[in-house]
Amino acid sequence: MTEPRLTHFDASGAAAMVDVSAKPETARSATARARVVMETATLALILSGDAKKGDVFGVARLAGIMAAKRTADLIPLCHPLPISAVSVDLRAEGTNTVEIEATVRTTGRTGVEMEALTAASIAALTVYDMVKAVDRGMRIEALRVVAKSGGKSGDFQQE
Amino acid sequence: MTEPRLTHFDASGAAAMVDVSAKPETARSATARARVVMETATLALILSGDAKKGDVFGVARLAGIMAAKRTADLIPLCHPLPISAVSVDLRAEGTNTVEIEATVRTTGRTGVEMEALTAASIAALTVYDMVKAVDRGMRIEALRVVAKSGGKSGDFQQE
Amino acid sequence: MTEPRLTHFDASGAAAMVDVSAKPETARSATARARVVMETATLALILSGDAKKGDVFGVARLAGIMAAKRTADLIPLCHPLPISAVSVDLRAEGTNTVEIEATVRTTGRTGVEMEALTAASIAALTVYDMVKAVDRGMRIEALRVVAKSGGKSGDFQQE
Amino acid sequence: MTEPRLTHFDASGAAAMVDVSAKPETARSATARARVVMETATLALILSGDAKKGDVFGVARLAGIMAAKRTADLIPLCHPLPISAVSVDLRAEGTNTVEIEATVRTTGRTGVEMEALTAASIAALTVYDMVKAVDRGMRIEALRVVAKSGGKSGDFQQE
Amino acid sequence: MTEPRLTHFDASGAAAMVDVSAKPETARSATARARVVMETATLALILSGDAKKGDVFGVARLAGIMAAKRTADLIPLCHPLPISAVSVDLRAEGTNTVEIEATVRTTGRTGVEMEALTAASIAALTVYDMVKAVDRGMRIEALRVVAKSGGKSGDFQQE
Amino acid sequence: MTEPRLTHFDASGAAAMVDVSAKPETARSATARARVVMETATLALILSGDAKKGDVFGVARLAGIMAAKRTADLIPLCHPLPISAVSVDLRAEGTNTVEIEATVRTTGRTGVEMEALTAASIAALTVYDMVKAVDRGMRIEALRVVAKSGGKSGDFQQE
Repeated sequence: MTEPRLTHFDASGAAAMVDVSAKPETARSATARARVVMETATLALILSGDAKKGDVFGVARLAGIMAAKRTADLIPLCHPLPISAVSVDLRAEGTNTVEIEATVRTTGRTGVEMEALTAASIAALTVYDMVKAVDRGMRIEALRVVAKSGGKSGDFQQE
Repeated sequence: MTEPRLTHFDASGAAAMVDVSAKPETARSATARARVVMETATLALILSGDAKKGDVFGVARLAGIMAAKRTADLIPLCHPLPISAVSVDLRAEGTNTVEIEATVRTTGRTGVEMEALTAASIAALTVYDMVKAVDRGMRIEALRVVAKSGGKSGDFQQE
Repeated sequence: MTEPRLTHFDASGAAAMVDVSAKPETARSATARARVVMETATLALILSGDAKKGDVFGVARLAGIMAAKRTADLIPLCHPLPISAVSVDLRAEGTNTVEIEATVRTTGRTGVEMEALTAASIAALTVYDMVKAVDRGMRIEALRVVAKSGGKSGDFQQE
Repeated sequence: MTEPRLTHFDASGAAAMVDVSAKPETARSATARARVVMETATLALILSGDAKKGDVFGVARLAGIMAAKRTADLIPLCHPLPISAVSVDLRAEGTNTVEIEATVRTTGRTGVEMEALTAASIAALTVYDMVKAVDRGMRIEALRVVAKSGGKSGDFQQE
Repeated sequence: MTEPRLTHFDASGAAAMVDVSAKPETARSATARARVVMETATLALILSGDAKKGDVFGVARLAGIMAAKRTADLIPLCHPLPISAVSVDLRAEGTNTVEIEATVRTTGRTGVEMEALTAASIAALTVYDMVKAVDRGMRIEALRVVAKSGGKSGDFQQE
Repeated sequence: MTEPRLTHFDASGAAAMVDVSAKPETARSATARARVVMETATLALILSGDAKKGDVFGVARLAGIMAAKRTADLIPLCHPLPISAVSVDLRAEGTNTVEIEATVRTTGRTGVEMEALTAASIAALTVYDMVKAVDRGMRIEALRVVAKSGGKSGDFQQE
């Protein structure tokens, strides 16, 4: 699956934004996931909230959606893309984990894996921010792309 | 260590940026870490590069430093802070892991954990972006705060 | 004219950026207006200026144009759009009102009402900022869309 | 109350960011309000939602808080300020109005009226965005500063 | 070559973002250059570095690439464009000059001269920032467009 | 005047934002200049405009002021600073040159040379943007710091 070249560097080793001018605009999507692992009491506290008592998932979802739109500002060699849809889903998994899934769509010349990963990552960090005062040991785990469609390299589904 | 209140929500459950006006400005620092786990061949490819043949770590370091300065733009309830130092260190660990450590300092009214986490997170995503064409299975793991100093809640060192 | 569904939330109530991938790219425009109501002396002071003595309208116009380009950064569920034209017009109306009109055009998959409203709103706030030292009682009134063309929902002209 | 000079322009009429170096850092706050006026059915639709069925107020509140932090990016002659607190409150008023109130605090050399106005304005525009598909005739009204404290010009309370 | 009209102002003299809706999307590229002139010892210090000892050119290259993507945020009347490629090249010229060349490509309705100039300019400023502690007399010279292709006005090559 | 170390790189050569925590906050200012050299007819065209017929200098001034506030976003290793004043002056020099001077002030832990240079540079690029349709041969020349005060390294005045 690997080949000995990093496309983001030219022959002399200089970093560059890869030229995608010749690629056709096609429909693309990508889905990324991450987990925030915490103490059981912390997850219970999050779940006790809602729009009336503190909607942690709602705030994190918004942060993830907005971050997807900032991806090209954050990842140096990423192309700006006209995102056509973003959704971020958060749910409790077991007694100590928040599972996050972000899906991004575009019609463009490159894929949206980085946008999906950025959305999941910032949503996870936002959960962390809101509960860090009560739990110093939280960890964000398993941030990865789980599905991708569109583009030359073909579809894949990892999980 | 936990207490039953989320400070980012008021009595009615509405999210708010916590009022830190009354806190003194003190010297603070935070260190966060993350790992990018990949195939052995991918790490070998990264390590074969340098300023002449493609400096993946150099690009990711810059992305992390710049992202630390954007934290308050990305994390909805984070306070803007006059960051006084950022460093991001990347190194190979074993045969298949890039270990990332980010340290942020400020003199301010709140801590810089979120800035350190954002720096580590975006540095990890930038590594991902540069090698994703050769390795679809990468995962970002164990993003967490490992040390913190300054502020009322006292210092801690986790690892 | 109303129907019982908010398109920015999915079946479970989660906010999302609506999927517009399937919509065709069409020429679209929108015009928004706002008023800044102030004391008569304040308006007279603004009108006495020009490029030589303080061009309040020129500064506000630029602020509005630049803000139109930032709309998707500000409005959480707005799609990023390749804006193809923005104009912002300011003029005195009667003895105590600045009337602002902003028009935005694009060729895209969604409308530009939010871009026109953001341009008019930030132009109005910029007028406010420049004269607030002499008039504490200013109000921004009647910010609304007055015309729209392109897209499935058809053209309309409100005023 | 008015005096014949606009502080944002120098003697030759050129716009400039006013020099505040000589001012002391003091605690300051400002509160701004705005109204979104809509059809009765539209307000009923908004109120039927919550974290489970679409939390319009929660999304708008976040947008307002984040916009407060972007004020100096949007208003050309505004000073960047280390905001120490932001809250945005939304509630129904009568049968057809959403009332928005934003309060911003800082310890700085200039006031935060523009930050409070920007927060209220973007929260109002975000409400508009989420319900515009069902109500074309909405208007944002009465965006103004209602209270201010700190700074040389003294406190005032307008309503 | 000159004609008596500035396209960025309307008949009344108001600045506006020119309407490009009617222009076709075509492949376009532009190349800009700049020089940073410094003391001989300063250039020697820069050249002694690399990924191990301080890669000034690597940092400046990244800054230039990222700045190209921010052009429409910085230049008030510039259209946002979906950039499809950016490269920034830095090299020593003689004993006291760093020569910078930036090339930007897009498929869009307007040219990318401003994006290429912004990339070259920010790369030059970043070189300046990194060595300013050892050389107060540096100057950035000869920032200009050297080649352009695509669009109605035809190709040109200046050097 | 030169010494053999680049402060923006650590002992291993890694770029970092220099730690300024230990520096005192002092009043600082910096002034930068640049020239835009063009055809005589182009300058005449610019000078024929004003707020009524196209105020090129007014637009460029605003762009420079706003860019000063974005410096830390653009220059990777620059510290974010609470700017307390910015002014940008543009005037014709001879028959073919626009001379630009930008002054920035702060009370902070590092100097504002980069902010002044960024303001002058973006003001120059904005002039370029507005007249590029009539003059392809413009060049930006002699962008440099001409005066600086405050901070450990002492004041200097270059011109």
